[in-house]
Amino acid sequence: MAENIRKVGFIGLGIMGLPMARNLMKAGFELTVYNRTRSRTDALAAEGAKVASSPKAAAAEAGAVVCIVTDTPDVEAVLLGQEGVIHSARPGTVVIDMSTISPKATRRMAEALRARGIGMLDAPVSGGDIGAQKGTLTIMVGGEASDFDRARPLFEAMGKTITHMGPSGSGQSTKLCNQVLVAIHLMAVSESLLLARESGLDPSLAIQVLTGGAANSWSLQNLGPRIAAGDHAPGFMVKLLLKDLKLIREAAAEGELPIPFTALAEQMFISAAKLGCGDLGTQSVIRAFEQLADCRIAG
Amino acid sequence: MAENIRKVGFIGLGIMGLPMARNLMKAGFELTVYNRTRSRTDALAAEGAKVASSPKAAAAEAGAVVCIVTDTPDVEAVLLGQEGVIHSARPGTVVIDMSTISPKATRRMAEALRARGIGMLDAPVSGGDIGAQKGTLTIMVGGEASDFDRARPLFEAMGKTITHMGPSGSGQSTKLCNQVLVAIHLMAVSESLLLARESGLDPSLAIQVLTGGAANSWSLQNLGPRIAAGDHAPGFMVKLLLKDLKLIREAAAEGELPIPFTALAEQMFISAAKLGCGDLGTQSVIRAFEQLADCRIAG
Repeated sequence: MAENIRKVGFIGLGIMGLPMARNLMKAGFELTVYNRTRSRTDALAAEGAKVASSPKAAAAEAGAVVCIVTDTPDVEAVLLGQEGVIHSARPGTVVIDMSTISPKATRRMAEALRARGIGMLDAPVSGGDIGAQKGTLTIMVGGEASDFDRARPLFEAMGKTITHMGPSGSGQSTKLCNQVLVAIHLMAVSESLLLARESGLDPSLAIQVLTGGAANSWSLQNLGPRIAAGDHAPGFMVKLLLKDLKLIREAAAEGELPIPFTALAEQMFISAAKLGCGDLGTQSVIRAFEQLADCRIAG
Repeated sequence: MAENIRKVGFIGLGIMGLPMARNLMKAGFELTVYNRTRSRTDALAAEGAKVASSPKAAAAEAGAVVCIVTDTPDVEAVLLGQEGVIHSARPGTVVIDMSTISPKATRRMAEALRARGIGMLDAPVSGGDIGAQKGTLTIMVGGEASDFDRARPLFEAMGKTITHMGPSGSGQSTKLCNQVLVAIHLMAVSESLLLARESGLDPSLAIQVLTGGAANSWSLQNLGPRIAAGDHAPGFMVKLLLKDLKLIREAAAEGELPIPFTALAEQMFISAAKLGCGDLGTQSVIRAFEQLADCRIAG
């Protein structure tokens, strides 16, 4: 048993990871941080974090290791690679992967770690950079209940709604279900606003009315006005949603589950990326619809 | 100018019309009601409404005529048919069509009425039978501003959110934009819950978590739990949404607007109807997805 869960290795100081690490420090956790681009560690070092030169070094003294990087291969490298966490973490350590990656690969990694007596939780988040900064993330957790209980103080420092969804991979599966809704809801908003425009309605007035009832969604309420205003700043980038849509497609294919709407949504986001929207917010997918319809909704 | 807008002809006492007529009576309007199936008028007659034997008779003494029937041809018959409102309504009367029908046909009927000095508002609603009973409907209104102002006391007796969307047809167009969202959101909920099930998640727990953030929608919150419980009772019937989807398809085709997601959603609801779900709630479209995936989510 690792002696002290208050010693935390933290790997990945991106837009999400940096504020999450900071919230852990504010809650009294002692952090040893690692980031591929070393300069991203400077701010936290100035605030008292130790800086490690590899994931392995970040995990050496830790009772818990948090990792939040981009994609499945990144997590594999960080946990199981040559300089990976697995080579230094002591039995009883809990590894918490907060990236959004493959549920299947997650289960495989959890097994590899378990063989060394290391626990692993998959704990992807939703709520964006604002949620990460405010510590109000939704955290969807898969893994052993005992590991979940031990990690709870860390989750409570970073998020608000924290749910144990089931065994290893369940957190990732829940996040993929979340992204199915996010992607298709945005298709609904896009087609509805184009029909509104085509019908000569004021899109902003339409959004105001439509959010009042059975047509409402987070997407309509939050991204609808940005579409109407031609504001395509991220938010959540098209290229990252495309990564998640690939994960959803792979997970569905494993179960031979047809997902016609998610698949068609993926095509629209591919089209948006092709139109130069990869680094823009997901609402910029309206450009793919505008291209289809040969029209412009705003701007 | 019709002398008294407090005398109201009311045509169509269905699931929506009956409670709406009752709310008008409660607010002090004097109603003359007509319904194709005469027995539906009995309850209101007992509460003091006059009963007319035709739309024409219902409109003869009225300052305003409300009509809420099923489809475009029904409204055409009620307003312009042989026994229609147009043959008795006096100049200055306001006709308020609260059915969900074609925006294009609406504009044509408004013109025919205007040629006789009769105003017409299209004012479809959302909020369902519960909203009709409680007088909390969302009412989306198209037509002349002066007619809208005159009709406002009637709207306020029946609804809560009352918005003048623009010229004739704008109310119907807004309602169609509403139904685009309603239909596609339900596709998102269906695919997400099937993926949840396929991934071994508890659908109810998933819904609880997913409603907390960016994946939320009215459909997920209200219809998700019914899908998870295998409860397919209406709510809003598949066959009525199919009627609206046809209207959307026609309106989009007029503007040569491609609507791939709405079109694919229509196919799923056609499949649901084929599976015997026409008179069930729209959430029963999950059966079409289950058929595709050869599985059952509940029940």
